[in-house]
Amino acid sequence: MKDKIKLICFDADDTLWVNEPYYREAEKKFCALLCDIISENDCNDELLKIEIGNIGQYGYGAKSFMLSMVETALKLTGNKIDPVKIGKILELGNELINKPVELLDGVEEVLKKLQNNYRLIVATKGDLLDQERKLGNSGLEKYFHHIEIMSEKKVENYKKLIAHLDIPVEQFLMVGNSLKSDILPVIELGGSAIHIPCETTWAHEHVENHGITTERFLEVNSIRDILGFFKP
Amino acid sequence: MKDKIKLICFDADDTLWVNEPYYREAEKKFCALLCDIISENDCNDELLKIEIGNIGQYGYGAKSFMLSMVETALKLTGNKIDPVKIGKILELGNELINKPVELLDGVEEVLKKLQNNYRLIVATKGDLLDQERKLGNSGLEKYFHHIEIMSEKKVENYKKLIAHLDIPVEQFLMVGNSLKSDILPVIELGGSAIHIPCETTWAHEHVENHGITTERFLEVNSIRDILGFFKP
Repeated sequence: MKDKIKLICFDADDTLWVNEPYYREAEKKFCALLCDIISENDCNDELLKIEIGNIGQYGYGAKSFMLSMVETALKLTGNKIDPVKIGKILELGNELINKPVELLDGVEEVLKKLQNNYRLIVATKGDLLDQERKLGNSGLEKYFHHIEIMSEKKVENYKKLIAHLDIPVEQFLMVGNSLKSDILPVIELGGSAIHIPCETTWAHEHVENHGITTERFLEVNSIRDILGFFKP
Repeated sequence: MKDKIKLICFDADDTLWVNEPYYREAEKKFCALLCDIISENDCNDELLKIEIGNIGQYGYGAKSFMLSMVETALKLTGNKIDPVKIGKILELGNELINKPVELLDGVEEVLKKLQNNYRLIVATKGDLLDQERKLGNSGLEKYFHHIEIMSEKKVENYKKLIAHLDIPVEQFLMVGNSLKSDILPVIELGGSAIHIPCETTWAHEHVENHGITTERFLEVNSIRDILGFFKP
């Protein structure tokens, strides 16, 4: 695969910077608001169900998460919640939006080395403003030729992206932490993909057993391992 | 101007299809939820203030509007709102998201005629998923070479867009209903712009007196008037 690759496309959340742990923290605080009526586990399950049910309507990102928390709180309390707690939910969401961008270990070193020999881009899903802000604050924008913020990361979305980039799919490599969003659709299209598993993965992104056997797929422990492979 | 133009860029909300009247309708219903404590006018003023204050944090679109309505309701009632009404606010937002796409008069006819002689694109701000959904439901996607969903429509955003399109600014014409977002920044950059005023304009987009005198600017009553000008 490595001889063909001309363009490397990076996922952002939990590939370039920390994201999921901040959501886990917000969920914990959310469930604490309702701890008098429901256990943390059950509260998380209910929230997840509502979030997944809302993806088609709201998409991904912090605002969708906020709206799903409000809906979950109303549902779990049978509309009897103290409105002060609704205000707290908005605060939790705003805290999440304002979190500093914390780059994952090795990210900048890897981008710096790869930029000379490859066209680098970012493809991230989520909220438009949120992701633009994180990229701006990350200091990484200068390494990328193109930034694509997608409403979904399914096969047809990647197809459009690759058509827009005007390259054959064989030259396209995706790097990311989510098998479901970053790896499987790209492999299906005939591209290459490197999976960097992340300690914290959102339940909605979980894939039990990927069963990918093609040599266009690789799994590594850290973003630095890409360098060993590509010898930039 | 018309001899130079090669690319025509359309705003979407209230240029291609109805948008603001749906928001006005939702605001009316929102204020009705609070009519026992505040007049509709004062309620709208408060909501607008909170919406504008949240643009930097939430951006534009239905989800931001929903979060601002929740915040306004909590503020106006001193956190004493009946939580059932918070549920109604979420319903109002969901209704807004699910509104059918109603094309403005003449839009399809104009796009059909212009597509042969010009590269047509859309540049819209708002929520990524929302705008993708509206474009999909509009049936207009086939007329456009490119669709740009922007978090803001300021000078620097247009600069990036025009760089991405790889054309000289003299060939770029923007068509839209908002002087603030569609016209002034494009004129400032040296592009051309046609303003089609819309009956309902969001207070945040209001411009008192534009004072544009350049011949790169035109104001017309309806999208059909563009045809007379370009004689496609």
